[in-house]
Amino acid sequence: MSRITIVGGGLVGSLLTVLLARRGHKVDVFERRGDPRRTNVYAGRSINLVVSHRGWTALKAAGVQDAVERIVVPVYARMTHDLDGKLTRLPYSIENRAIHSVSRGELNKVMLTEAEKLPNVKLHFDHPCVEVDLEHARCTFRHEVSGAVSNIKSDVVFGADGAPSAVRQAMMRGRFNFSQSFIEHDYKEIAFPSNADGTPKMDPQCLHIWPRRYFMLMGLANQDGGFTGTLFMPHAATENSPGFDVLKEEKDVRKFFQDHFTDAIPMVPDLVEQYMRNPQSNLAIIRCAPWTHKDKVALIGDAAHAIVPFYGEGMNAGYEDCKVLNDLLNQHGDDNWGVVLDAYHKARKPNGDAIADLSLRNFVEMRDLVADPKFILRKKIEGRLQQRHPDKWLPLYSQVKFSDIAYTDAWNEGLRHDRIMEQVLAMPGIEEKWESEEVEKMALGLLEGLA
Amino acid sequence: MSRITIVGGGLVGSLLTVLLARRGHKVDVFERRGDPRRTNVYAGRSINLVVSHRGWTALKAAGVQDAVERIVVPVYARMTHDLDGKLTRLPYSIENRAIHSVSRGELNKVMLTEAEKLPNVKLHFDHPCVEVDLEHARCTFRHEVSGAVSNIKSDVVFGADGAPSAVRQAMMRGRFNFSQSFIEHDYKEIAFPSNADGTPKMDPQCLHIWPRRYFMLMGLANQDGGFTGTLFMPHAATENSPGFDVLKEEKDVRKFFQDHFTDAIPMVPDLVEQYMRNPQSNLAIIRCAPWTHKDKVALIGDAAHAIVPFYGEGMNAGYEDCKVLNDLLNQHGDDNWGVVLDAYHKARKPNGDAIADLSLRNFVEMRDLVADPKFILRKKIEGRLQQRHPDKWLPLYSQVKFSDIAYTDAWNEGLRHDRIMEQVLAMPGIEEKWESEEVEKMALGLLEGLA
Repeated sequence: MSRITIVGGGLVGSLLTVLLARRGHKVDVFERRGDPRRTNVYAGRSINLVVSHRGWTALKAAGVQDAVERIVVPVYARMTHDLDGKLTRLPYSIENRAIHSVSRGELNKVMLTEAEKLPNVKLHFDHPCVEVDLEHARCTFRHEVSGAVSNIKSDVVFGADGAPSAVRQAMMRGRFNFSQSFIEHDYKEIAFPSNADGTPKMDPQCLHIWPRRYFMLMGLANQDGGFTGTLFMPHAATENSPGFDVLKEEKDVRKFFQDHFTDAIPMVPDLVEQYMRNPQSNLAIIRCAPWTHKDKVALIGDAAHAIVPFYGEGMNAGYEDCKVLNDLLNQHGDDNWGVVLDAYHKARKPNGDAIADLSLRNFVEMRDLVADPKFILRKKIEGRLQQRHPDKWLPLYSQVKFSDIAYTDAWNEGLRHDRIMEQVLAMPGIEEKWESEEVEKMALGLLEGLA
Repeated sequence: MSRITIVGGGLVGSLLTVLLARRGHKVDVFERRGDPRRTNVYAGRSINLVVSHRGWTALKAAGVQDAVERIVVPVYARMTHDLDGKLTRLPYSIENRAIHSVSRGELNKVMLTEAEKLPNVKLHFDHPCVEVDLEHARCTFRHEVSGAVSNIKSDVVFGADGAPSAVRQAMMRGRFNFSQSFIEHDYKEIAFPSNADGTPKMDPQCLHIWPRRYFMLMGLANQDGGFTGTLFMPHAATENSPGFDVLKEEKDVRKFFQDHFTDAIPMVPDLVEQYMRNPQSNLAIIRCAPWTHKDKVALIGDAAHAIVPFYGEGMNAGYEDCKVLNDLLNQHGDDNWGVVLDAYHKARKPNGDAIADLSLRNFVEMRDLVADPKFILRKKIEGRLQQRHPDKWLPLYSQVKFSDIAYTDAWNEGLRHDRIMEQVLAMPGIEEKWESEEVEKMALGLLEGLA
């Protein structure tokens, strides 16, 4: 059994800890922030998360599914809010399947508690990593409060320390490919409170979206009846769109919400105050390679593949990393780290790239297409195809959120679907005959032609 | 007039110093290494450089052309060495124009001496930059020997500190796009000595190439009759190619050179010893944006756009950055840094990307195509076209090395030439009729069609 250091005790770090400790390894977790069960480390800057099928698969493998089920809210559909406050409900799946909304902080607390139950796990909070010696799997941590420096030598180090990863920083000094690319949009959290009696002000089983083409507001339910809302808007205004750079005065902010998100205003009495107070965060895609250094160090989760949040798959992709690593340990044994880490990188790197592409694509869909009648028609046609030919047609969203199909395969299949549906939607009179056999035949014929 | 801090006293830093000091600015240069006029800071790890037209244009603008002309060797052609040692000479230009080989170290020394002649310049060696406060244009340096820390506040900071730029590092903490991408090949220097009487062992007015498809050796003349040779080979062996990772034993190295570079062996008596002793370096392309922070900080040269050395344009691209900046100061005045830096970034960033693409493309040409009869035929056809229609056809190489045409335009024109020449080379019997009017008409017709 190996001595393992996990840098980062967030969502991925804590799940990885449970999986590895259950296998018998001795696991030390070093987290730069404080213990989230004691201090509110995520205040005002967290997008709510969704657990999808891949996430559940990994949680099951770690035996913590039950603990997590208690803190999630099922979400069955998107609910779009148009300019007049008119609602349209778009189910995620024809089989009434749900994704599950969860607060990042709550999930992290549960997972840390699960990890701490295991006797061979030790958690060290307030311990930022300041240096990693890759060759010797040795990490240096400096205690936030006392300044005391610890040098921890282990057999294997996992960098589960998120987008600003210190472990990755050490790898960058070598022959290491890396890119960070910021998208045009930043975001800001807006909390929607519950009613006075604790009931929610909107349907909690929907992800609410106010798609406005160049910017959008979204909201995901919390267990307390409130919603975590997030405003996505360009960092800098363009001729088509307002931007965080120009929306700085209270009166402008008020007018902006009145103009674009009228129905949200009565639900959030302190909306302008929150906008003025909450931090503005930016969004980057990070890609790198290789994720591993010999049999000694591996990156996992956002440290290896930070993506934008629009598919709600960042955590699920990281959880799937853990699950695949666990499978590889089953396959190759627990004392064969060189082989396991190599196979882990080969298996996961292309999928990290694919989910980055998918998450950007879904941003366009969310802010733009969900408000487009053609898009809604496409969803209906795809739903019908899936219903009648479930073996042949699984929509991209279902592949990503409700299956274990590799992200790379889902991406390719999604592009194929795009090409097919473009031709189908160009059929004359498609609005009237979308439920006809003619349309079905056309789609399936194209599908076979492109196979 | 402004107080300017230039981080990095290498090739670009020293030219920029001369240009800015001549305009009347007070310039302080901080270089992390020692003074190259006192210690050999480049020992055993420098590819020789070539000054091309753009380089000369910038050197002229700085008034240092004469000083540099004294230390260069003109290079008029490529000379390929095949497996049997057979030589083929391929002129760079039909007008007998030359690029100019120069030792990095010698050029740096001359430029520092030129800079130091100016009363408003101060050079500080052994001063690595450890921190930059972008908002206040304040840099922190720690003296290599004494450890003394200096905080230097200025009006504008230029990061001319090369690929590992500390200034860029500070910018990366913000909303800053960045990528570093290593190519498959590493390199190692092999020095070719002169004959005992100081005469060169090969034609010094040629760039010598041993193209072997998956790896290559090249040599550029020095003023002392020797050549700086460079072996480019994959970092890791593949099924097609040896690699630095497997070529570690003296006997294998000897056999490798005997098999592939037979005619180089008698010229370099200590070839194997040099291979064993000299460091192996890797090659990366760095792209980033934005290159500037408000009116306070700008990246220049490799710090902004590190490229691979295969077009011999890295320094020339950096010199052109300096020239363009100087032109913009002429245009907008010396107290208008916000406007000037913004215009500088807009003008140079696309060209930084284009020369990165061009330099990768030329690697394929050098290691691969120069040994291909089709490539040689193409060069002949293009040479003829240029000779007969100089207003219509300027080969890509000439655009890059013998003109001021923007790299972006050269890249696009190069792609257009590729498409045309592909069709021309596919003409039946092209080997016999390449000098015919038919071929000329075909090429020019296609050129007009694609215009």
